[in-house]
Amino acid sequence: MLTPASASPRHIVFLAFQGFQVLDLAGPMQVFLSASEHARDSATGLPIDYRVSVVSSGPTRVQGSLSLAIDAEALPSALKPGTTVMVVGGKGVEAASHDPLLIGWLRTHKDEAERICSVCNGALVLARAGLLAGKRATTHWVDCDKLQRNFRDVTVDRDAIYVRDGKIWSSAGVSAGIDLALALVADDHGEAAAAVTAKWMVL
Amino acid sequence: MLTPASASPRHIVFLAFQGFQVLDLAGPMQVFLSASEHARDSATGLPIDYRVSVVSSGPTRVQGSLSLAIDAEALPSALKPGTTVMVVGGKGVEAASHDPLLIGWLRTHKDEAERICSVCNGALVLARAGLLAGKRATTHWVDCDKLQRNFRDVTVDRDAIYVRDGKIWSSAGVSAGIDLALALVADDHGEAAAAVTAKWMVL
Repeated sequence: MLTPASASPRHIVFLAFQGFQVLDLAGPMQVFLSASEHARDSATGLPIDYRVSVVSSGPTRVQGSLSLAIDAEALPSALKPGTTVMVVGGKGVEAASHDPLLIGWLRTHKDEAERICSVCNGALVLARAGLLAGKRATTHWVDCDKLQRNFRDVTVDRDAIYVRDGKIWSSAGVSAGIDLALALVADDHGEAAAAVTAKWMVL
Repeated sequence: MLTPASASPRHIVFLAFQGFQVLDLAGPMQVFLSASEHARDSATGLPIDYRVSVVSSGPTRVQGSLSLAIDAEALPSALKPGTTVMVVGGKGVEAASHDPLLIGWLRTHKDEAERICSVCNGALVLARAGLLAGKRATTHWVDCDKLQRNFRDVTVDRDAIYVRDGKIWSSAGVSAGIDLALALVADDHGEAAAAVTAKWMVL
């Protein structure tokens, strides 16, 4: 029997929209890339294999904060097994949470996804798609009241850096997305893999 | 006498190059923008006014890591008073440190700049421009040996998150650029301003 060259690939699909907060995406993405480049699965010692993509319901080039833009693919019609969907936040989140294509896509694919995550006020998009109903979640502290007021069936945790409730993970603002991503790496590949990744990123 | 509407503007010029590490730029940039949006000068209570720009010796659109790109201006022919130059790092740093336009620009304007900073392996660019000669500096831990080997007149501090030596500030890898930027905000506007900014970014 051949020894596998690396741990099973895991897919991370970032959902971007016009006006996304660049750090919400770049921080977690760097975590997954650094884990794949520098860390190994804690149990098997095999290299880690995250495959990262960015998708959008709109144009190919998506403009984010800080004058940075990213090239995104169209929303996929199916998710590969072992896919984590990450919804980022930003000043464009209000428009994104009313984008029927984006919200419809989340509803259609929520059962296929292994995990669905939000960074910062991306939680508002998950809430609008009905994914936080009856669940615990968090968001940027400045948006906690808004999330609670608009979605009364969500239990908002104002003090957490990230919250896991079943397959839904949500994180607090901006840099908390990095903590969330490290927690996902730990969940997938053990604490040692997450520690190597954090050391690489000088966290 | 009219009361000023905000603290004196300070200019932050990010020096980008093909293959720059997006987090090296986006982390510090978000610090300066968050400080301007949410914090006040600790001594005077006035709003903070950082004016951020991105410049490059090459094409207008500069491709960074993580599939992100940024629109940059040409290298300016003069620096405004109160300008901090920030040189980021990334996989393109080796080519950047051999770019005669970029290195020549740094040498020409080093006396005009109020501060010159590096993030991650951007320290190699400062070293190549002769700005670290006889000075203490740091870089990503994986690059400390290389910096020391190639530039024997630099005192490399391997354990620091950031190092200040006169007007030259250097930081360790990736996320350490955020710590450096917060230290610059504290230097300009006091610790309270830096604390408000960090809270906003959930650090």
